[in-house]
Amino acid sequence: MRFFSDNAAPVHPSVMAAMADANVLDTAYDGDGWSKQLDARFSDLFETPVRALWVPSGTAANCLALAALCPPHGAIVCHRDAHIQNDEAGAPEFYTHGAKLLLAEGEGAKLAPETIAAVLDATRNDVHQVQPHAISITNATEYGLVYSPNDVAAIGHLARERGLGLHMDGARFANAVAHLGCAPADVTWRAGVDALSFGFVKNGGMSAEALIFFKPELAAATLYRRKRAGLLLSKGRYLAAQLLAMLDGNLWLDLARGANAGAALLAQAAGDRLVNPVEANEVFLRVTAAEAEKLRALGFDFYDWGPGEARLVISWNQRPEDIRPLADAIATL
Amino acid sequence: MRFFSDNAAPVHPSVMAAMADANVLDTAYDGDGWSKQLDARFSDLFETPVRALWVPSGTAANCLALAALCPPHGAIVCHRDAHIQNDEAGAPEFYTHGAKLLLAEGEGAKLAPETIAAVLDATRNDVHQVQPHAISITNATEYGLVYSPNDVAAIGHLARERGLGLHMDGARFANAVAHLGCAPADVTWRAGVDALSFGFVKNGGMSAEALIFFKPELAAATLYRRKRAGLLLSKGRYLAAQLLAMLDGNLWLDLARGANAGAALLAQAAGDRLVNPVEANEVFLRVTAAEAEKLRALGFDFYDWGPGEARLVISWNQRPEDIRPLADAIATL
Amino acid sequence: MRFFSDNAAPVHPSVMAAMADANVLDTAYDGDGWSKQLDARFSDLFETPVRALWVPSGTAANCLALAALCPPHGAIVCHRDAHIQNDEAGAPEFYTHGAKLLLAEGEGAKLAPETIAAVLDATRNDVHQVQPHAISITNATEYGLVYSPNDVAAIGHLARERGLGLHMDGARFANAVAHLGCAPADVTWRAGVDALSFGFVKNGGMSAEALIFFKPELAAATLYRRKRAGLLLSKGRYLAAQLLAMLDGNLWLDLARGANAGAALLAQAAGDRLVNPVEANEVFLRVTAAEAEKLRALGFDFYDWGPGEARLVISWNQRPEDIRPLADAIATL
Amino acid sequence: MRFFSDNAAPVHPSVMAAMADANVLDTAYDGDGWSKQLDARFSDLFETPVRALWVPSGTAANCLALAALCPPHGAIVCHRDAHIQNDEAGAPEFYTHGAKLLLAEGEGAKLAPETIAAVLDATRNDVHQVQPHAISITNATEYGLVYSPNDVAAIGHLARERGLGLHMDGARFANAVAHLGCAPADVTWRAGVDALSFGFVKNGGMSAEALIFFKPELAAATLYRRKRAGLLLSKGRYLAAQLLAMLDGNLWLDLARGANAGAALLAQAAGDRLVNPVEANEVFLRVTAAEAEKLRALGFDFYDWGPGEARLVISWNQRPEDIRPLADAIATL
Repeated sequence: MRFFSDNAAPVHPSVMAAMADANVLDTAYDGDGWSKQLDARFSDLFETPVRALWVPSGTAANCLALAALCPPHGAIVCHRDAHIQNDEAGAPEFYTHGAKLLLAEGEGAKLAPETIAAVLDATRNDVHQVQPHAISITNATEYGLVYSPNDVAAIGHLARERGLGLHMDGARFANAVAHLGCAPADVTWRAGVDALSFGFVKNGGMSAEALIFFKPELAAATLYRRKRAGLLLSKGRYLAAQLLAMLDGNLWLDLARGANAGAALLAQAAGDRLVNPVEANEVFLRVTAAEAEKLRALGFDFYDWGPGEARLVISWNQRPEDIRPLADAIATL
Repeated sequence: MRFFSDNAAPVHPSVMAAMADANVLDTAYDGDGWSKQLDARFSDLFETPVRALWVPSGTAANCLALAALCPPHGAIVCHRDAHIQNDEAGAPEFYTHGAKLLLAEGEGAKLAPETIAAVLDATRNDVHQVQPHAISITNATEYGLVYSPNDVAAIGHLARERGLGLHMDGARFANAVAHLGCAPADVTWRAGVDALSFGFVKNGGMSAEALIFFKPELAAATLYRRKRAGLLLSKGRYLAAQLLAMLDGNLWLDLARGANAGAALLAQAAGDRLVNPVEANEVFLRVTAAEAEKLRALGFDFYDWGPGEARLVISWNQRPEDIRPLADAIATL
Repeated sequence: MRFFSDNAAPVHPSVMAAMADANVLDTAYDGDGWSKQLDARFSDLFETPVRALWVPSGTAANCLALAALCPPHGAIVCHRDAHIQNDEAGAPEFYTHGAKLLLAEGEGAKLAPETIAAVLDATRNDVHQVQPHAISITNATEYGLVYSPNDVAAIGHLARERGLGLHMDGARFANAVAHLGCAPADVTWRAGVDALSFGFVKNGGMSAEALIFFKPELAAATLYRRKRAGLLLSKGRYLAAQLLAMLDGNLWLDLARGANAGAALLAQAAGDRLVNPVEANEVFLRVTAAEAEKLRALGFDFYDWGPGEARLVISWNQRPEDIRPLADAIATL
Repeated sequence: MRFFSDNAAPVHPSVMAAMADANVLDTAYDGDGWSKQLDARFSDLFETPVRALWVPSGTAANCLALAALCPPHGAIVCHRDAHIQNDEAGAPEFYTHGAKLLLAEGEGAKLAPETIAAVLDATRNDVHQVQPHAISITNATEYGLVYSPNDVAAIGHLARERGLGLHMDGARFANAVAHLGCAPADVTWRAGVDALSFGFVKNGGMSAEALIFFKPELAAATLYRRKRAGLLLSKGRYLAAQLLAMLDGNLWLDLARGANAGAALLAQAAGDRLVNPVEANEVFLRVTAAEAEKLRALGFDFYDWGPGEARLVISWNQRPEDIRPLADAIATL
């Protein structure tokens, strides 16, 4: 059983079915009937008028958002362990034409107003230094922690105070919302978020993420940037259909709840071995090399995550009965 | 019946089936079993070792190829009517970091060594002018003309002579090969092409094009550029599966032959109204506004293409019986 | 005697003297006493509040202006023969991060509302095409023609109507104003110009051009771009001093009048040989190869400018007695 | 007396005289007689064939060097306190089209193979992470420390081993060489340096730095980049003349020795207050706010440098008798 990555999981049958339903002639790019529903459907979900654009990858969503919030000569504050800093091959710099990422601290890849302000205050306000224009936070974080509405609002307050845009990388936004039990609005625009990368691929989608602008005027130039980056797929209806299928009946939330529950099973078994509290679908364990070996010998696959640590990720399609054997194995290490 | 664009057509059932077959757990990005077959399968098709990368759009394929062939301070010669110049929103400039497109002439959007050389010779060889590093041709062209192996070889010869790379935008490469009846190798690397954007989406695919490097060493930096552009989808197996399905039993060629045959039906009916010879799946007609109106009143949809011209595109799924009514209507205008 | 280029001329003694006067300790970058005078002095000259920045080259001035007026995904309309298109090695694309130059027509490298509108109207207003954001004109043009206040106002009107910025490349702005006899304001902001590259180097300066923003708010981001491009020289006072010396007593205008008068001498001698009317300090002649050879044998140096044409440029330091021998030689060809 | 910055100092009389001597007609850009001497003169100085280009600022020199050594999708390792990271407004990202700076540690802004290797080893070798292509060190460092030939050679060895280019920011290279007493070759190419930003402006020049390529083939594309960045001044002879004047009779070295000697005077007076050993022309002192105030009250100006620290910089034109009063004031604090 593989616990490497939620990217390795298959696509949910409802998503596959929706793509089959969309397999008819319609207008190219985003002129089709599916794409045209996105703004309304996501506006409903977020209880406010939003612009919602499909994009084929989370990196694309993140970097289009950053390009909308930061000029080439500006900087974006993010966590030292952020995906945009470490795992996107310099895509933020590509999309922003060379903006700088300024790295802030925080346990479990989670930022706080204080650690962000420390970075902001270290920048002199003169033309010799790159000036911050935006903050980017990841919810859930790279270490599976979740920002609450209050956590985000505190950062949103700082952003407004300093005149900065606020982006949320929500590659696992569904898992965060499932954990919080709040309205999606509470942890985004009501807390000051301007743009959200709303991830679906890790949560049962195939090739569509949603880029949500809570300030709809940010979408205008983004439409050009999306095309200019080769991201405006000609048969866009198959991407829109995926997103709509995930929204139907709140499938996105159900799947995330399931994955979170699986992670909770492991967390319970892991006890003191946990590196961080488990709040989403990722579990970081302290294990010796011998223990990791032992788990692998039992047929469980996962990534080593730094010395003495392992990362286990639960996917939408792993049921409790799939996970319990690993939980048991951990408990009896 | 719509003759707007082959991008409006649905996806071929075999492609849909292949994606369903790929709907299992596998390694993320391009580490899966499908993606790993691409090099070998395309090398077979082209009778030489190639590197083959999936990308989600033709614009992405074109622009990654151009970035591999031209530095930021260089220029690419293309036709004044090329897709990369007119319909990609500046993506070539984005991917190359500002390389210049130098525009050459030719009937039917088709270049010849003479018209390319005219552009090359107009550039002084000093640091004040942007120096050409590559040529890009489109086969079939934006006006449905096809470069033969000899046509390409003549341009390939010029490219080598001047030390330039040669890219082929093959958004409708299948239609070109179907028309020529040659080996794919004959009209590409044997004729001097370094990189090919091999289109599948207009020809029955959903969201996967192939970027083919005949100089495999060009792929190395491209792998980084693909990721850096947000084009390395995390569930890449669904893209690779599309390409493999199109290669199986030469489905790509069969579908293109069908579309070309449909266009030939219209061409026969159109006679003197043809703006260009019909060699692929596009038909450009001379029609008055009143005639265009008349055709539309009969239920046929298509684009006006400049004053007094209409563009009709045949898709892979349009059968002769779908097309004949339009042919008859044109014949009796 | 050399008539190659006004860039080959030496520096005016007053400029050298001003630099010697500035050779004292002062604050680095543009914090010095000379740099601080620029806004006021140029505001006086232009009879309106402007922001004036020194930059070390005309290319830098042009491209910072373009970057202030056009986003990376936008386009700039300019003449096919514009310096920014042909002689700046792709600097506009570098500074704008890949904006496109759209090329318009016009005799003597001079644009008109009609030729600009032809380019604008050829662009579809959709995300697949790069949208125009600015117009750039050159006064005097690359062929020595001068836009009058009315000429510029007509283009300025078009720019406003279409929501475009208007840049003037004034590498030979002094020669244009000297020809027109108008106030500098008349041919710039009063006619709709947003940003001016005000050239001094060809006119007796050494290494300082002025970038003038008639919309002062455009300067804010430009200050960052200037530094980010390595153009904010640490001893900026020597550049500011050059500009101030040129403004003192309208030296810039006197020098341009002198060069224009020299060109007029040649124009009179050339008669029917003139390719264009001579309005500034450049003279384009029709000469056979044999005639060109004959002039060179007499000791006159100049550039061939296309087949059967020669370009003669008069510099600020060439007196009538320096020029008359060439005028005589031309008259007796 | 001001000890703010060596950028505030005037220009050496010999440099002014050389510019006056160059004030004649000559070919534009770098086609003049002065520019053409640079390769030979710097090759003599470095005892090996080099390519030497004038550029108008140190930022320009640094960033052209980095662009020659690192592709847009690559990374450059530098010190956390490096000028390229903190004081060039993102110019490295602009010139490299978005390459990343990876920040390494070391006392006094000085890198060592171990601290560089720590950064290199933290980068996974896959397409998701930006791969290092170059190392940049500053000699003398931002805190006035000097890399010896052995220090550089150790880093050069690491660079070769890992396949990385090596750049030296020599804004105060003269001060480093003056301190070391070695041949310039010893601390550059013999130790593995590929490109050097050789600073002259802080050391008595006006507006010319030299960019030295020890691998001459790196110059070819740089010539285009220099023009494309608006850095190829049309009257380049005045920049070349400055450099040649500084080389004549080793003026550059004499001036640096003088400034270093001045700093040594202060160092002696400062004793335990020194933050770092004083090896070049900068002195970093521990002073309380009250002490700093006291020094300022005596007429000495300088920058605060973090809490409880002050930076004093000695310029080429400050004589011992100018400095001694400050030394005395420090000694009696």
